[in-house]
Amino acid sequence: MRKLITNIALYQNHKVTEAKNIDIQDDRIIGFPDTYQRTDYDEIIDGQHMLALPGFVNTHNHIAMTVFRSYADDMQLMDWLTQKIWPAEDKLDSDIVYAQTTLGIAEMIRCGTTSFADMYFFMSDVARAVADTGIRAALSRGMTGITPNAQDALKESRTFFYDWNGKADGRITVMLGPHAPYTCPPAYLQQVVDLAHELGAEIHMHLSETKGEVEDIQKQYGKTPIALADELGILDCGCLAAHCVWVTDDDLTIMKNKHVRVAHNPGSNFKLASGIAPLTKMLQKGITVGLGTDGASSNNNLDIVEEMHLASLVHKANTLNPLVISADTAVQLLTIGGAKCLGYKDIGTLDVNAKADITLIDREGLHWYPKNDPLSLFVYASNSMDVDTVLVDGKVLLRHKEFTTIDIEKVKFEAERTKEKLFSSL
Amino acid sequence: MRKLITNIALYQNHKVTEAKNIDIQDDRIIGFPDTYQRTDYDEIIDGQHMLALPGFVNTHNHIAMTVFRSYADDMQLMDWLTQKIWPAEDKLDSDIVYAQTTLGIAEMIRCGTTSFADMYFFMSDVARAVADTGIRAALSRGMTGITPNAQDALKESRTFFYDWNGKADGRITVMLGPHAPYTCPPAYLQQVVDLAHELGAEIHMHLSETKGEVEDIQKQYGKTPIALADELGILDCGCLAAHCVWVTDDDLTIMKNKHVRVAHNPGSNFKLASGIAPLTKMLQKGITVGLGTDGASSNNNLDIVEEMHLASLVHKANTLNPLVISADTAVQLLTIGGAKCLGYKDIGTLDVNAKADITLIDREGLHWYPKNDPLSLFVYASNSMDVDTVLVDGKVLLRHKEFTTIDIEKVKFEAERTKEKLFSSL
Repeated sequence: MRKLITNIALYQNHKVTEAKNIDIQDDRIIGFPDTYQRTDYDEIIDGQHMLALPGFVNTHNHIAMTVFRSYADDMQLMDWLTQKIWPAEDKLDSDIVYAQTTLGIAEMIRCGTTSFADMYFFMSDVARAVADTGIRAALSRGMTGITPNAQDALKESRTFFYDWNGKADGRITVMLGPHAPYTCPPAYLQQVVDLAHELGAEIHMHLSETKGEVEDIQKQYGKTPIALADELGILDCGCLAAHCVWVTDDDLTIMKNKHVRVAHNPGSNFKLASGIAPLTKMLQKGITVGLGTDGASSNNNLDIVEEMHLASLVHKANTLNPLVISADTAVQLLTIGGAKCLGYKDIGTLDVNAKADITLIDREGLHWYPKNDPLSLFVYASNSMDVDTVLVDGKVLLRHKEFTTIDIEKVKFEAERTKEKLFSSL
Repeated sequence: MRKLITNIALYQNHKVTEAKNIDIQDDRIIGFPDTYQRTDYDEIIDGQHMLALPGFVNTHNHIAMTVFRSYADDMQLMDWLTQKIWPAEDKLDSDIVYAQTTLGIAEMIRCGTTSFADMYFFMSDVARAVADTGIRAALSRGMTGITPNAQDALKESRTFFYDWNGKADGRITVMLGPHAPYTCPPAYLQQVVDLAHELGAEIHMHLSETKGEVEDIQKQYGKTPIALADELGILDCGCLAAHCVWVTDDDLTIMKNKHVRVAHNPGSNFKLASGIAPLTKMLQKGITVGLGTDGASSNNNLDIVEEMHLASLVHKANTLNPLVISADTAVQLLTIGGAKCLGYKDIGTLDVNAKADITLIDREGLHWYPKNDPLSLFVYASNSMDVDTVLVDGKVLLRHKEFTTIDIEKVKFEAERTKEKLFSSL
């Protein structure tokens, strides 16, 4: 199957060039021809008035939590968890998780997302939804060592790895998901590390999300969560660390040395009042960072363009320096930074031989006028509703804002049906 | 002309009630009938799947600066002003300002905005665009006391007041716009205050935007910009103060006592690295606050819903308190808070006898599923592209996302034409 995207503005090597063509063979980009024969192609995608960017990557999610979107807000974290979320999570089932995951995937594709990292339960249902919809994902079964099912979770993780790693035409990667140092004691984390080595799986974990967490871990173990994770060998497995809001300069040095990749989730960190992560310090250190929405219950959407926008603005104010997180840096976080976070080698740029994960942005909205710098317009003026077309693995999943693989009315119906089922059981 | 909006979710008294009807006679809301005769109405607007909110208010703008949207970013403030903005502003003319203002107004209406405050030059062209498009505005001719045209600006302000205050069916209010304490020496501000008293006009002014400004004013006059403005009588004229990022507790007390209304512009304050304003302290004090985008050159859009979203998130992180700026508080900032900032008495709520400035939000986007709390969904999950219908003074300006008073293709063409004209003259 050969496709050509014609006459499009192309983001490549940190700049935008107008009127380019993108040649796609099956799942990969094979060139950028100046001229072409229409008959050589199975499909021509007209890119006029559009900007092509590497597909956006959402590096941290608990996707089935879409069911809890705006279910309970403006509460203290522990009240929210103990009174609202945990009792409801106890009642989740495969049916609910599949429906809510499909809703979340649809929302992410609508916002230009081509791959995401997830940590939750009923992960084979999440994997089914990934396979069915055509998106790419790095999935992990969330594990806590302090709950009765701690050992079952390890077993499930192993089974999940064998069942799904590399499946769905290679679009699914399986990682291990120990929840956090405060829910996974050292002995349990040691088991996780052993399993990671056995499987050759990487690790996705919450680290240093809140001030309270860091204080508690420091008190209990005499070291920071990052230093503890390092000591336990977590960081030697290849680690995607979510949040890292409260990290010290020593932590940053460890993170750099151990190639920790950071999922930066400004929307969630702000909404939960966790704080403002030292993004500019991380980037100065050369640490790999991508953007994440976290679950829809603490955001409350899965709009990765909005996360980019937040990251591009807030760190300027927080450091009182207008030169940090430039438009180009913001796009790098959204694309290649995120792809590296998920462990991908051939995703995140629009280069020859890269996977054809591509997002096309419509530039005809009013906020794209007058037509000054295109990258600045994308980062500072646009929004996710400008996403027009999304390709994953060379397949079109969204075209002119319409889904090709998802029956969206059915998705909405199922989202409502399974939400009613869940909440009526409480 | 009598209109009825039927079967709509209505935000009133801090809560949302489903399936209400809104009865509009000419420019005002006259009731919420449970039953009605279709034949009593000239127009029925079907509100199914929608949420009715008071029209959104943008309390601080320099609207013709849309021409500079993404023209120059990621620069230090003074480099940006001296190398890019000021030389270009010298070449502005009526033609450019009218075209770029119309573009900006269209973008604001598209984002649900029904009124805005503006401070710039060529204000009679801005007023013409307001009159032509049907939006509501509080306009001020920007004045600086340190430039050769200082006295001309005062004269222009007087003329502009007589020409336009109360015009366009009462949709235009004229305020005086002394730029800031650092560009308007005390003797000049005294002249502004005298003119304000003569005309009965209120004042729109930048105050305490940056740390540097406050330090300079403190050094020069031995007091903060707020205290200086108070001493000079500015605050006794009725004052809309833009930014107030760097205000002390004493400043806040003065602001409360003098009924200063604050235009809070998170997007601009973040992008320019001005800082994070103490919004929660202002609200605790009982100070009136609305939201503003500032000009598109420092934002880079005129999306007031995004400002609400920023305000609802960032102050939680900055204060490490998830309970501040609740969803309801955010909507109040967006609507009634903004309306009070602009000096309106009968705008900002959906009550009987209020002006029919109404924004209808489409709730069928994926991020509105599943259907949990509607106000939380609006504040934390939605975006401005959900705006479906906008009424100002009872007139429909946007219906199903299409403009009724603006030829949008012409607006885009004119925006490009006048931008080219401006930049080719440099």
